[in-house]
Amino acid sequence: MPDKAIVLSSGGIDSSTAMAIAKSKGKEIYSLSFRYGQRHSIEIKASKKIAQSLGAKAHKIIDIDLRQFGGSALTDDINVPKHDTVDDIDANQIPITYVPARNTIFLSYAMAWAEVLKATSIYIGVTAVDYSGYPDCRPQFIEAFEKMANLATRTGITKEAVLKIETPLIHLSKADIIRTGVDLGVDYGLTTSCYDPDALGRSCGSCESCLHRIKGFKEAGIKDPTLYY
Amino acid sequence: MPDKAIVLSSGGIDSSTAMAIAKSKGKEIYSLSFRYGQRHSIEIKASKKIAQSLGAKAHKIIDIDLRQFGGSALTDDINVPKHDTVDDIDANQIPITYVPARNTIFLSYAMAWAEVLKATSIYIGVTAVDYSGYPDCRPQFIEAFEKMANLATRTGITKEAVLKIETPLIHLSKADIIRTGVDLGVDYGLTTSCYDPDALGRSCGSCESCLHRIKGFKEAGIKDPTLYY
Repeated sequence: MPDKAIVLSSGGIDSSTAMAIAKSKGKEIYSLSFRYGQRHSIEIKASKKIAQSLGAKAHKIIDIDLRQFGGSALTDDINVPKHDTVDDIDANQIPITYVPARNTIFLSYAMAWAEVLKATSIYIGVTAVDYSGYPDCRPQFIEAFEKMANLATRTGITKEAVLKIETPLIHLSKADIIRTGVDLGVDYGLTTSCYDPDALGRSCGSCESCLHRIKGFKEAGIKDPTLYY
Repeated sequence: MPDKAIVLSSGGIDSSTAMAIAKSKGKEIYSLSFRYGQRHSIEIKASKKIAQSLGAKAHKIIDIDLRQFGGSALTDDINVPKHDTVDDIDANQIPITYVPARNTIFLSYAMAWAEVLKATSIYIGVTAVDYSGYPDCRPQFIEAFEKMANLATRTGITKEAVLKIETPLIHLSKADIIRTGVDLGVDYGLTTSCYDPDALGRSCGSCESCLHRIKGFKEAGIKDPTLYY
């Protein structure tokens, strides 16, 4: 029987590539997405298409209401900041698009599902290169989460299996991620990155997430299939 | 300004006592409860009354659907096991009432709220004495969570404030918890412990949670105000 892996999927470039990598390692894929009050809920549709295209065994969408707490431009009525280029973003500031505790909550749900399925790994597409400076994307956070997870669950007592948090993109640039995904057959036309898409699902091209995407495709020398408004 | 504390509240003896202890330390209380598909949702009503009686500044109830993953008698259509006495429960087995990742998910939400409020502590009424053998009630889990939490959040980068996970009951027996709460004015008549209450909200008296409660009141020499069916 193949090992089971939970893959956190946001319908974007990084998580889709992480899913393709898990698949290339022979894992049986259980895709997990969240409706968390994000204004860019179009990513849920993208995550469904990605899971299907990569042959996921199951795809669950969990409703969690992070708007109850507030504190982020992605969930509140705060405008998503726009910039001309990536270099205009202050790299020393945690941006207003940061959602408090988001990755911790996502990983905690993944941990619950992993325990029930007896999955041995959780894939998360975080990267410490070309990223937005979110504290919960750093390697030291992932390591601490993995340690905690193995104490939190049944396996922490029975030692039956150990849960690994896999971050295959952690040291890759956006361009490298895109090259890897293209090699593995990811259809990036199915993915979406924009924090502020229009009603037709087209991307703004000027939020930090779009800018990272555009720069990545450019550096990889690959045509960006995204429609921008 | 008083320090803010998030208190995880299930409407039971332990979390209500933890809230009273936080209050006695001068904390401003932010009570947090979860509707997680538990069959004993009467505990949500109890948690509201407790928060009110202990003067909480706010009380939030978060909907999370742990039934999507299954794997527990508290959320699935599995009968809650009944016993004659506490000694009939196999202490070396993790019981079927264990809900995978529950405390991790609860603490992750608390962490999100703490970050937004700039609260410096989260109180959780776990105890390593007279408990049900759940892996996510052990001190080593709490320590690992605290370490992870301080890396996961804005404070992990800015070093503005450190988040403490407070477990004031960790080394107390149920009887000691009850004595402490009575000293601090907790009205245990407002609390509920039963995993399998009847339609009138009365307790079964024979699930593991009721048995721990009954034993605790008996050992403390205090009258149990609970109605049993």
